[in-house]
Amino acid sequence: MIRIGIAGYGNLGKGVECAISQNPDMELFGIFTRRNPESVKTVFESSKVYSMDDITDFKDDIDVLIICGGSATDLPVQTPALSKHFNVVDSFDTHAKIPEHFENVDKASAQSGKVAVISAGWDPGMFSLNRIYAEAILPKGETYTFWGKGVSQGHSDAIRRIDGVLDARQYTIPVEDALEKVRSGENPNLSTRDKHIRECFVVAEDGADKNRIEKEIKTMPNYFADYNTIVHFISMEELQKNHSGIPHGGFVIHSGKTGKDMENTHVIEYSLKLDSNPEFTSSVLVCCARAAYKLNQEGQKGCKTVFDIPPAYFSSKSREELIKNNL
Amino acid sequence: MIRIGIAGYGNLGKGVECAISQNPDMELFGIFTRRNPESVKTVFESSKVYSMDDITDFKDDIDVLIICGGSATDLPVQTPALSKHFNVVDSFDTHAKIPEHFENVDKASAQSGKVAVISAGWDPGMFSLNRIYAEAILPKGETYTFWGKGVSQGHSDAIRRIDGVLDARQYTIPVEDALEKVRSGENPNLSTRDKHIRECFVVAEDGADKNRIEKEIKTMPNYFADYNTIVHFISMEELQKNHSGIPHGGFVIHSGKTGKDMENTHVIEYSLKLDSNPEFTSSVLVCCARAAYKLNQEGQKGCKTVFDIPPAYFSSKSREELIKNNL
Repeated sequence: MIRIGIAGYGNLGKGVECAISQNPDMELFGIFTRRNPESVKTVFESSKVYSMDDITDFKDDIDVLIICGGSATDLPVQTPALSKHFNVVDSFDTHAKIPEHFENVDKASAQSGKVAVISAGWDPGMFSLNRIYAEAILPKGETYTFWGKGVSQGHSDAIRRIDGVLDARQYTIPVEDALEKVRSGENPNLSTRDKHIRECFVVAEDGADKNRIEKEIKTMPNYFADYNTIVHFISMEELQKNHSGIPHGGFVIHSGKTGKDMENTHVIEYSLKLDSNPEFTSSVLVCCARAAYKLNQEGQKGCKTVFDIPPAYFSSKSREELIKNNL
Repeated sequence: MIRIGIAGYGNLGKGVECAISQNPDMELFGIFTRRNPESVKTVFESSKVYSMDDITDFKDDIDVLIICGGSATDLPVQTPALSKHFNVVDSFDTHAKIPEHFENVDKASAQSGKVAVISAGWDPGMFSLNRIYAEAILPKGETYTFWGKGVSQGHSDAIRRIDGVLDARQYTIPVEDALEKVRSGENPNLSTRDKHIRECFVVAEDGADKNRIEKEIKTMPNYFADYNTIVHFISMEELQKNHSGIPHGGFVIHSGKTGKDMENTHVIEYSLKLDSNPEFTSSVLVCCARAAYKLNQEGQKGCKTVFDIPPAYFSSKSREELIKNNL
């Protein structure tokens, strides 16, 4: 049994707790929190909760620690620090800062002799994998990534900060026409506006100026100004009833040409349709934890990404079984 | 530059010759054939052709040999024999015999210190990879593979063997309704007949009994009896005009559940739409050749499958570039 620790207990940590229970070769050692452990209500009653302050006391009891903090401030500190004592997995997803995070984590984990898998999840993660496989197979081609339909937490938060807004939910939606153009293999040039629509469900305070709120949303730089944005004002009841889920998903589509005169077109498409973004991400983290464990058992150390891991390492099945039944 | 040899020069070998020209880190050393080399017309005039009998004379000139023979009789002999002298890649696709082929190739290549990548292509190959990634992420789920729309060479050949048939083309077509059921996440039980239709375009001899031919096709065991089969009789001109391509493709769809009470459903879908089945397979073989080269440069040896190869090894880009631009 691979003994897993969970560091940080929000939606992602809860998803990891659930995912471990689906994997027969794994068990949860415990959950580590910065809150008072006694105040934490776990998904399963049997799950143990400890204080993050004591985590290094358990370094011999945990095979892999899955770090479930946020990318903005938690992971840049936690992953290098914890990889001094544990094999770790994180979901660091600030794309522009991945090389720097990689460097920091690699230094710490190479020194401690542990394996650290960073930026696991679906993007970065499974989408990244599909981008590099497709580009390696068909180098004369273009790769397109579309996100959605799904809830963007960052964009929902940005709307909530507007004066007069009580709550909000923002969906990122791929433009069907753009998807079809890409699938046809014509390798179109697509602007930001061409690829995604942003649809917002907003609960306004009584008496708030809805025209002003709508204008503030639609003109907000970086978040909305470059998109076609649709704003709906709804009641709090409706928001809670119809928009409480955290679905997401998306598409990686690569089309490329082969043949003497590039006469043949091929389209590779990978897509995800997820009821729960954090639970799916957690499921990826858990199978990356298995890979981290196997790599470290072989004597490997240092920072890894999904690009470095042989696919068989993610599976609970033996290599022989995989060759016989899945190849 | 990685120097590639091509052993066997049918559709697959020609596809490899084209694919090498798209990859800036590779060059074609030469093509090896069992025919008279002077009788072979290559895609590019500059490509050199040698006799297969002399192939071991060039073992120091070739980094990786891509073996482009058939799975029925060529590869079971050629891959073990040639892996005694070369790093090799093949597309062995007789699923039931892969474990035996693996054993034979592993013995030869482990002894010679070479790397052999077997069963590369799209199924086995990219479809296999997607099956194991999806199952590792969502172990509580089901995986479905659909093939087509595309030409099945084996089924076309089976029709051609019927008395009174001059030529034929058989398309395997996934049943749209079955695809939709799988995509909905309901994990249906699907029989062979539920999943695929077989559509046949047949050119009959003048005066042949078309009713008898149609009946022979539809009742042919293993090939057609278990399917809904549609038979069209067409002229030789129409066959040549509208059915001369070798398109193929298909879908790997996995749907699985997460959450405390399995309340959330996720659907992972990978699909291929290929204008030319052999040219796409060749493109996979060529990036596997790059992986074989890199693995052998590191000192690895023995038989490998796509399950064993870190994804970054397929790419011509450096690990740093991939982390920066593709993760």
